[in-house]
Parts: sequence; structure tokens; C-alpha cells
Amino acid sequence: MGDDLRIDGERLSARIAQLGQVAPIPGGGVARLALTDADRQGRDLVTGWMRELGLAVSVDGIGNVVGVRKGLEDGPPVMMGSHIDTVRTGGRYDGNLGVLGGLEVMATLDDANVVTRRPLAVAFFTNEEGSRFQPDMMGSLVYVGALPLDRALATVGIDGTTVGADLARIGYAGPAPVGARGRVHAYVELHVEQGPVLEAEGFTIGAVEGVQGISWTEVTLTGQSNHAGTTPMRLRHDAGLVAAEIATFARRVAKEMGGHQVATVGALTLFPNLVNVVANRVVMTVDLRNTDEALLKDAERRVFAFAEEAAAAEGVGLSRRSLARFEPVAFAPDLVARVEAIARELGHKVRRLPSGAGHDAQILASICPACMIFVPSARGVSHNVEEFTSPADIQAGGDVLLRLVRELAR
Amino acid sequence: MGDDLRIDGERLSARIAQLGQVAPIPGGGVARLALTDADRQGRDLVTGWMRELGLAVSVDGIGNVVGVRKGLEDGPPVMMGSHIDTVRTGGRYDGNLGVLGGLEVMATLDDANVVTRRPLAVAFFTNEEGSRFQPDMMGSLVYVGALPLDRALATVGIDGTTVGADLARIGYAGPAPVGARGRVHAYVELHVEQGPVLEAEGFTIGAVEGVQGISWTEVTLTGQSNHAGTTPMRLRHDAGLVAAEIATFARRVAKEMGGHQVATVGALTLFPNLVNVVANRVVMTVDLRNTDEALLKDAERRVFAFAEEAAAAEGVGLSRRSLARFEPVAFAPDLVARVEAIARELGHKVRRLPSGAGHDAQILASICPACMIFVPSARGVSHNVEEFTSPADIQAGGDVLLRLVRELAR
Repeated sequence: MGDDLRIDGERLSARIAQLGQVAPIPGGGVARLALTDADRQGRDLVTGWMRELGLAVSVDGIGNVVGVRKGLEDGPPVMMGSHIDTVRTGGRYDGNLGVLGGLEVMATLDDANVVTRRPLAVAFFTNEEGSRFQPDMMGSLVYVGALPLDRALATVGIDGTTVGADLARIGYAGPAPVGARGRVHAYVELHVEQGPVLEAEGFTIGAVEGVQGISWTEVTLTGQSNHAGTTPMRLRHDAGLVAAEIATFARRVAKEMGGHQVATVGALTLFPNLVNVVANRVVMTVDLRNTDEALLKDAERRVFAFAEEAAAAEGVGLSRRSLARFEPVAFAPDLVARVEAIARELGHKVRRLPSGAGHDAQILASICPACMIFVPSARGVSHNVEEFTSPADIQAGGDVLLRLVRELAR
Repeated sequence: MGDDLRIDGERLSARIAQLGQVAPIPGGGVARLALTDADRQGRDLVTGWMRELGLAVSVDGIGNVVGVRKGLEDGPPVMMGSHIDTVRTGGRYDGNLGVLGGLEVMATLDDANVVTRRPLAVAFFTNEEGSRFQPDMMGSLVYVGALPLDRALATVGIDGTTVGADLARIGYAGPAPVGARGRVHAYVELHVEQGPVLEAEGFTIGAVEGVQGISWTEVTLTGQSNHAGTTPMRLRHDAGLVAAEIATFARRVAKEMGGHQVATVGALTLFPNLVNVVANRVVMTVDLRNTDEALLKDAERRVFAFAEEAAAAEGVGLSRRSLARFEPVAFAPDLVARVEAIARELGHKVRRLPSGAGHDAQILASICPACMIFVPSARGVSHNVEEFTSPADIQAGGDVLLRLVRELAR
């Protein structure tokens, strides 16, 4: 099966650079928020490349774009893909690599005159980032039938417009039906790690075992505003203190549980936020993640039991609401094993790891075997203009993608 | 000496209410920021009352207003006073009570045809609050010679204007010289507690032993912004975590030290302050106060030694700068004892306590024997439209002030 076939890493890097020139921002990043004019320009460019490669391009009702390369037989394609929308200060690699990597696989097969048994497809899904419209991964959610199309189209975003209106405005409200169950043989997403593990430990390829479960909670603490000089400690109801206690305890839980448990208090706002006034109110977030649902539930239980106790001890009121809650997703074990094996065959250092971020692949996993291939992110930086993955790592990731897809399409 | 003489509490409360109608805000409060038109209206009203009482009114170069009632002899007067500027959402009592209480003492003496041996004076000092111009207690600092007049006049405030220009604009840049050393026999300031202690413990009068030393520090923590899902705990440099650890430790220090030690983290701002991003930067304040300078230094040493350790352990940078540092001020022990004794003689429950807030009296203490009389603040609320002190407590405080001033002026 032409085991020595390799992608053209320079061609792939050139496409990444070219797409990075659509709505560039200073420092080397891009700003293509979903369904903006910038997103349309990116879509037009990538769709044009799909047509140049002779793919049959379809656009569905939520704006997902799928380009299909014929196989020797009909039937559900082996799909590659990701997204090309970005956050407001995005990098060039997040999402884009998976889409353009898929096109590169097809171009490589074209150059070698290889036709696979099953069809191949490259997809880019609408609004993966969720920066302008909630929820994130909207396109893939609609694609697999987990989010009704009409509800997605009615979503009002941060600019006051709806998904439906903006899709029509940029010309990407397509006729293809959504609801893809049974229409995809397998899904493979090449992506930058967006974390520091691979680089820090000297690995080139990550065989992604699954996506961490995510628990986002907003905690509101209500104490009493008091003069920082005149109020004895025993008479205080300091919402800021309780917030600090919760934040330190969350770290302790993550440390004690170890493994893949992470805990972050990333947002914390005090009121009135003055040097000499005891805070009467705090709004804070607690972000807990684990690859194991039972452990994640345990972390939630421990952190919020402590939070209730700490608030009660200080005479501070506590309320909380869930901002997001996703169970962990495990990718198809045989595909994960193949990523690992192929990477080794190709001479790359590979390790298994979970994804800490959400990806379209976790949504696709509900309708077909799915997996992800990670390549290193320099210093773990992502959602940032300084996001960077080396050409050598892009070559490596593309080669693993190529070989895995050929296997799956046999 | 007419020991049964009492102030007219209704007249005093009526003046407080009338001054409370100058720049009123919803809920019963006032907004007379220093050197605004509202401040001028308040000054005009109080200065008018001084003249009605036959006082010799002088205005000095920083806008401090002093009204003097002749005594049988010349010489430095026994001075009462405080301030009539307020914070943006101020109450009616803070400052105003000490000034109007002084006028009420004079009116009571007039009604009883009492002329004291020494002259009496009532003063209100410019910009005690420091809400528009830093530092606070500006007028009294200039009055005692601790702050040069020209530097004070050049101060630029939050509205972009200078003290000098605003003083001239409202017509209170007066000709009287500043620098009062040797010109005041003693200073007595009646004030609301602005804290909860007297009410909570059932006392009517507070004999203020001194003003706590104040240590305000701004701490800036510099970590690394990272994805809350993809960054393992061991690779984090979480500025938010270190901030939370410092805040919890500051409380622990206050608890362990006990006594008059208080510690507050009232302001704490995370960057970028997002649920799923590890904070790369925190700016926070630490407010430490104690009545004992050695203990205050010990608290500073402990908190910042811990802060350095915690930052180093997380790989987070720490820098700090002092926002304010005042040593504790002890009021004249014989005056404190007299406040306590007089309150008892008048049948009021009295306790000694420190002031947790700064007051003009602590500045005057550098040039003459000074003391303060506290009356309860309902629920400890101050710098708030709900600030309240009952008419009965105002009567009690005014009576103590009257008797003490008569003693001092004998």
C-alpha cells in the first residue's frame, strides 16, 4: 500500500500560511470569528482548494462544509476535518491544521495516483470555538443530530445577530441535510495539542485517548461590605476570603487526586474591590476536568462540600450554577492504538494523553469510531497569536494522518 | 461649672439633617466630594452657621475653615472639629457630626451665657476623605505642617483638576496662614465609630485610645496564561492561586496574632479573568492594621515572607509597592481617661477602643494633645447612604464633648 508515502509538508505549511493571511492580526495570528466576513473569506479560500482537488463539495444547513473524494466503492467516507473559525486572538494552527492536513492527504494521494476503496472526506464544522455564538462545537453538534438545526439557527450571539441570519449573509446556509448518523465510516482529527505536555516531555505525536469531562461552575458568594480598619475579624463576613479558600482548596483536591484531574479558578471578581473595604460579593468560576466521570464527580463533590463549609463558617451566602458539564469522551480504542503504532512505525516518539480542550472529534465519536492525532504546541501556547507548531511536527502529524486514513479506507 | 449643662440634641440633629440636604443622594446619603460645587454649598451653609454664632471665621490657604469663640483670655483655643466632605456615596454623620457637634457646644454655652477661660474653636478640614484628591486628611496635614501647601495645591485629582484651581473656583483659597504648631491648646473630635463594636457590645461612648497603624501594599503577581484543560497542574504558574494563598494566609496571621491586628484583601483583579484560562497576572491589595507598631511590622513580615515563598513555589513573579504606611498614633492618655470618666459620670456605658479608620485627630495629635469620642454606627455601616447614629447616641456624644471641652478650656 505504498508505505513510504509521505505528505508534502512544505505544501501543507504553505496552505497554513496562506489561510493565516485571511484576517491576520499583529504578531502572526488571525481573527476569524465564526460567521463574520473574515470567516467567509476563509471558507471561500478552503472551499476553492477543495474544488481544485476535484472534491464534491456540499454545504449543510448549519454551514458545515464537506468535500468528498471518490473511492473505488460507494458508502460512508473516512472523514478528516476540524474547523477554520478562530477565537478573537487566534493562532494559525488551531483547527486549520486538521482541515488543511486532510486536503494535503488528498493531494498526496492524487500525486501518487492512489484511489482508496472507501471514499475520503474533509470537513470543516461551523463555529467550533463558540466565541461569537454559544455553544461551541455547534456545527458538529448539529451534524450528528445532538442539537436541533432550528435551535442552532435561532442562537443570538454577542453581536446581537442570529446564526441563521449571519449564515445567510455570508452565503453558507447550504442545502445539504444535517444529521449524519450512518453517513461517516470513521473520523480522524489532526490537531495541535494546545497544551505543553508533548513539547515538555519530548514527544512528537500524541495518541489522544479521549476528551476530559468538563465541569464549569459559577459560584456567587454574598457577604457583608465592611470597613477594613474598623471591623474586628470576628465580626466579618468576607466573601473575598471564602473565594480565596475555595481557590486554594480546589488546587489541593487536584493535587491529592493526581492523575488527569485538573482544577482552575480562572475568573474571580470582587465587589466593591477596594483596598479598605471587606468584599461583600464575589463571582468566581471553578473549572474541573477529568478523563474519568466518577473521579470528576468526586472532585465536584469535594470542592463544593468544602465551599459550603467555608461559606457557612464565615457567615457568607453561597449559590452556584452550572455553566457547562460534559462527560468524558473515550475515542475508539483500536484507532488510538493504531495512531500509537503508526507513529512508532514512522519513527516518531509518541505518548497517549487525554485532550483537555473540547474538539469536534468528541461530537463525531457519538456516530462513528473517532480519534485524534496531536502534534506539539510550542510552550503549550494556544488561543494566542504566538501559537506555533514546527514544520517538522506538522510533517510528522500529516504522515500519521495519511497512513491511518489509508488503513481505514482500505 | 454648671455640670448639669447638656447640649440640645434636637437642634444638633436638625443641623445634621439640614446639611444632609446639601447634595443628597437616594437612600438618605450625601455626595459632597472635596472641592466640588456640592462641597462649596456645604461649606457656605456651615460657615453661615459659624457667623450666626458670632464666631471669628478664617479660611487658610488649603481651605480649612476655623471659627473661633472668644474666651476670657487670649491664647490658643480648645479646638473641636472634623470634616464635611464625603465619599461619593457617603452618609450624613461621618465628619459632619464632629463639626456640627462643635457648633452645638458653642450654641449651648451661648444659651447658658457661659464664657470659657480659653477660646474655643470649631474647624473643618479640607479633603479628609481623599476620594477626589490623594492623600486623604490633606487639609489637616497642611494645617500641622506635615504636607507643604504648594505640593498640596498642585495635586491632580481624579477629574484632572488641581486642588489649587478647585479651591480658587469654589472661593475657599483663604488668606489665613497654615502651619498651626503652638496655635491649638487641645483638639477633640466627636465622630461616628464607622465600625460595629460599640453597637454589638452595647456601649454608647467609645474612648478612642488611638488610631491603628495602617499598612497598604499592592502586590502584583506574574504567572503564565495557560489553558485550564490542557495544562497539567505540575506545569502551571497560576498567579490566581498564589493570590488566593496570600489572602487566606493574611487571615490566618490576623487570627493567630489576635488583639487589634486586622488583615484584609479587599481588591484582587485577575487577568485575563476567564473561566478556562489560568491567570497570568493578579493585582491585589493587602491592608494590615494594628495599634502597635512592632506587631504591625511583624504582621507585614509574616504575610510577605509567605507571599514570596508561595510565589516561588508556583514559579510566579512577585513585586510589591507600598500604597500607604502610617504608624499607629496614640491619643493623649489623660484626655482618653477624661472621655472615659466623663461618659461614666453622665451615666453612659463606655469602652476604650482604637480607631480603625484615619481621622484628622491623628494629624492634630502631632501638634497638641488630641483625642476622639466615638458614638455607635448602626450595624457598623459607614461610607454608605445607610450610615446611621441614633438621636440618643448623638445627644450622649455631644454631652461628653461639651463637658470635656469645658474642662479643657477652664
